[in-house]
Amino acid sequence: MPTYPNAIVQLLELLRNLPGVGKKTAERYAFSMLEWDEETRNALSKQLETLSSEVSACSECGSYMTKETCAYCTSSVRDEKSLLIVAHPKEIYALEELGGFRGRFHVLGGLLSPLDGIQPEHLSIGKLCERVEQDQVEEIILALDTTIEGDATSLYIKELFDNTSVTISRLAHGMPIGSSLEYIDEHTLLQAFAGRRGF
Amino acid sequence: MPTYPNAIVQLLELLRNLPGVGKKTAERYAFSMLEWDEETRNALSKQLETLSSEVSACSECGSYMTKETCAYCTSSVRDEKSLLIVAHPKEIYALEELGGFRGRFHVLGGLLSPLDGIQPEHLSIGKLCERVEQDQVEEIILALDTTIEGDATSLYIKELFDNTSVTISRLAHGMPIGSSLEYIDEHTLLQAFAGRRGF
Repeated sequence: MPTYPNAIVQLLELLRNLPGVGKKTAERYAFSMLEWDEETRNALSKQLETLSSEVSACSECGSYMTKETCAYCTSSVRDEKSLLIVAHPKEIYALEELGGFRGRFHVLGGLLSPLDGIQPEHLSIGKLCERVEQDQVEEIILALDTTIEGDATSLYIKELFDNTSVTISRLAHGMPIGSSLEYIDEHTLLQAFAGRRGF
Repeated sequence: MPTYPNAIVQLLELLRNLPGVGKKTAERYAFSMLEWDEETRNALSKQLETLSSEVSACSECGSYMTKETCAYCTSSVRDEKSLLIVAHPKEIYALEELGGFRGRFHVLGGLLSPLDGIQPEHLSIGKLCERVEQDQVEEIILALDTTIEGDATSLYIKELFDNTSVTISRLAHGMPIGSSLEYIDEHTLLQAFAGRRGF
């Protein structure tokens, strides 16, 4: 590492906390920030400082909220009997943009991953059971990654509610729109075949 | 764009000032920052706020310095008669790491680019002439990009000192170490051939 001034070294170290940012990218960002005008730099500084007071996680559903009440949990047009489960708050926005879902959300805060030491007690699964009982939830839709961790988490939650009246579904697996059969991997193809629908 | 909370939207806009960061990467960074612990976020905030007071450009050579005097310009072991010219302060560190150069630096602040409206008066070329005269510089080494803009700037500076006693050289052009002939573009190959040396 070149002998950068101390302030730059510290900035580099902090920037490397960003996902996918290594030594080279951190350098690019740091030197770009040095060339920003004072105003932009101060705006970002202020934004970072006030972030936690402006955005916090809802204690009920785990999504990000800006006021003291969560827009999703307090909305009267949203059906509390339908819960959509995601791993991270970020994913809510992509699903909300579609506009099709009118129920509530539940953020797990991650996916089960025994190898990384992430067990059910590390996720907000206890809170989920509580909400299901309290709100008499009738439908749970699982919107988790189609990875080993995502599938394991989906299965775990499905089994939790196996002997209850809750209907559990998960997002369809199959060919992405715009894809060509030639380039689809065999696992996806198998799922697409098993899940074929009347046409 | 999904309807993010206002604080996140502002953060996204600020992050897009970073080089090569578009909508998707800004989202990734912003949500990662939301998951950072308060301490890291405040550290970055503080670092950005104090950056301009801790790091400033030397009025003489243009490199970044942390104190009121520039380590390069005030060093007594550095030969003031030899000037290495770079476009940006960042490049000094890569060259310094090599440890071979014991002269001083001069940062142009960019490269000539008439199409982008960057003319000689926008670069610190006036200051360069001043320093050359004042310090009785004997050698100028041009370490600029091997692009059209870099070459044009090198040529411009060379012509400035054509009728003086200053020796001007530039970094060698040729095959990068570890490269295979098969993959070298023809311009590089031509330069490598023209610049062949006794072996």
